[in-house]
Amino acid sequence: MTARPQNVHQARLLRLLRDEGPRSRAELGDVVKLSRSKLAVELDRLVELGLVEGAGLAASRGGRRSGIVRLSPRLRFVAFDIGATSIDVAVTDGELEVLGHVNEPCDVRQGATVVLERALDLLGKLRDQGLIDGQVHGTGIGVPGPVSFRDGMPVVPPIMPGWDRFPVRDAIGQELGCPVLVDNDVNLMALGELTSGVARSVDDFLLVKIGTGIGCGIVVDGSIYRGVSGSAGDIGHIRVDDDGPVCACGNAGCLEAYFGGAALARDAAAAAASGESAHLAALLETHGELTGEHVSIAAAAGDAASVRIIREGGRHVGQVLAGLVSFFNPGLVIIAGGVAGLGHTLLAEIRSVVYRRSAPLATGNLPIVLSELAGAAGVVGGARLISDHVFSTA
Amino acid sequence: MTARPQNVHQARLLRLLRDEGPRSRAELGDVVKLSRSKLAVELDRLVELGLVEGAGLAASRGGRRSGIVRLSPRLRFVAFDIGATSIDVAVTDGELEVLGHVNEPCDVRQGATVVLERALDLLGKLRDQGLIDGQVHGTGIGVPGPVSFRDGMPVVPPIMPGWDRFPVRDAIGQELGCPVLVDNDVNLMALGELTSGVARSVDDFLLVKIGTGIGCGIVVDGSIYRGVSGSAGDIGHIRVDDDGPVCACGNAGCLEAYFGGAALARDAAAAAASGESAHLAALLETHGELTGEHVSIAAAAGDAASVRIIREGGRHVGQVLAGLVSFFNPGLVIIAGGVAGLGHTLLAEIRSVVYRRSAPLATGNLPIVLSELAGAAGVVGGARLISDHVFSTA
Repeated sequence: MTARPQNVHQARLLRLLRDEGPRSRAELGDVVKLSRSKLAVELDRLVELGLVEGAGLAASRGGRRSGIVRLSPRLRFVAFDIGATSIDVAVTDGELEVLGHVNEPCDVRQGATVVLERALDLLGKLRDQGLIDGQVHGTGIGVPGPVSFRDGMPVVPPIMPGWDRFPVRDAIGQELGCPVLVDNDVNLMALGELTSGVARSVDDFLLVKIGTGIGCGIVVDGSIYRGVSGSAGDIGHIRVDDDGPVCACGNAGCLEAYFGGAALARDAAAAAASGESAHLAALLETHGELTGEHVSIAAAAGDAASVRIIREGGRHVGQVLAGLVSFFNPGLVIIAGGVAGLGHTLLAEIRSVVYRRSAPLATGNLPIVLSELAGAAGVVGGARLISDHVFSTA
Repeated sequence: MTARPQNVHQARLLRLLRDEGPRSRAELGDVVKLSRSKLAVELDRLVELGLVEGAGLAASRGGRRSGIVRLSPRLRFVAFDIGATSIDVAVTDGELEVLGHVNEPCDVRQGATVVLERALDLLGKLRDQGLIDGQVHGTGIGVPGPVSFRDGMPVVPPIMPGWDRFPVRDAIGQELGCPVLVDNDVNLMALGELTSGVARSVDDFLLVKIGTGIGCGIVVDGSIYRGVSGSAGDIGHIRVDDDGPVCACGNAGCLEAYFGGAALARDAAAAAASGESAHLAALLETHGELTGEHVSIAAAAGDAASVRIIREGGRHVGQVLAGLVSFFNPGLVIIAGGVAGLGHTLLAEIRSVVYRRSAPLATGNLPIVLSELAGAAGVVGGARLISDHVFSTA
């Protein structure tokens, strides 16, 4: 069984050591406002639990030299970031430093049993590298669809056949013998950026992931806001226009019907077929199909049709985002996901629309930036999610 | 000087007594988890501060009868709810019961000095009725525009000439000798519904006020969410369509350009002029101008053009709200403000669009209802806002 803190002081100390690194007893006492003797009791207990250990003496602050403590270097968190077409598995230490990270293509439509077995195999590889010396202290899992956070399972996920209500948390918890939490992949990316990416000093921000689907992670006061039924941030089907393309959901003019994986492939195919883009037509002939990545490649090579497709997509994302920025007044907006590879053309268009159409007070000091962690955001976020849980008394 | 609690236990006790009413010492001890002797120390201190008093003995729970305590009946909170065209002033007791409430027409465009003097005059009337026996313990003020909550003043408020950066908090604080907080009127309405209206048991909800302008109060985990620069909920200029009517802000197709006071007046005048509505034409002849209220009256009398105007307005509000519901996944949406008087025709149209267009998980259990407190929501919210502050250690 994973050791857990027994009171709020111990939880606070663990999170401090996670976020700030090794600290002297004197420094910790200043922050948590415990007397020297009470602090010693709590730290001794954390040492007994195997969560903390001594690490020499600090430089003198004028009196007796204070002992340095740190999180046990044996602490290990695991993260599975399951995407529509790939799996990422990582192992971190207690301070959420990534010690090992593997990624491989994997179609989520193979169903829960097959995909989770692949994830466990990948974890086995990291274990074989000697990255885990004994116990796993917790595992955070992200999946590309709506999740009941409380139940630890996907709920009617549109692009994940065979996963509906599959007990992901309980299955992996039994397998690894540690606490497990399951969340939407976009929420994990937001937590990742909060932990060691571009949002490190920001309390309230949005992360918009544009990939196969389009979703949004919402951070309020340093924590994920999930809404009353866990579906907050589900922005892919927000209406852009009544007379837009018909969406897979049945409505017309949804954001995803304009942009995202399927829409990009559709628009690229149309530009190839109409003769507008010789570049895309050549890519189609070579590969047999077109994807968002091909649009990105063609745009980078100066293909005008691809640049137009990206600009139009950025404009539609910007139109929806402008409303959300007026409503939520965030301190930062992060653009992430496969399509973020479309880079600065996309970003420029999104910025232009948001800065023009959002409430002036909300954009006065609003950076709109690309993800810093890219592929690592999800696994860092997964480790953060489970460490927040393990380093709490709840 | 207003007495304030000196530690978190005292603050918690005051809020409990505010929200739950008089309680026995035994009951309070159960909730705050303090030993009998520590609880007695904290309560004695609150009695010394004049915030709490004894109120007889409770029925026996098997042992010695426990003393009942309550908030001092001399506690008084004041609320000013300044609207575009009216002022509401109210006095409440410590439990936020409204003891007196006056309302009169007042044009906010007369500027801060004139309007605040009117508000103080109205408070004088309530004082003359003997509602305040001594000190005012705190005042909450709502204004119809963006506010710097930290600075206690309006910031570039579009419909409040003469108010920009006027130090409302400090001016009224000096006048009344008590703590004062200033907030946007829509935030106060949301706090009012949370305190004694339809949102009493809801942690995460939206209140959409449709009046001269359109704004939204956002409650996250029982508190107002204001965003990083205090402008969260500023939804009046969210884009409905690119080719819609030109808005006062300069953009086209904003929500307020479709609905809200000026748009209603414009559409009603058009229906009167075109001959579509004899009813509205008659009202125009009688009154010299048409307002939202006239549309409401004509619709209630069965005027088809007025019903159409309301339906179209409801549809546009619903289109914007559907996106916000997908994004925020609230537990409740409240429709409030003058136009809420348009009632169930409006509500039916908003519901129809939101339930059809929002993410299914977000609407599975989402009531969309009219405000319960109507004109009193703002003043109850003002008293709540300042009492949260006075009953805290911050």
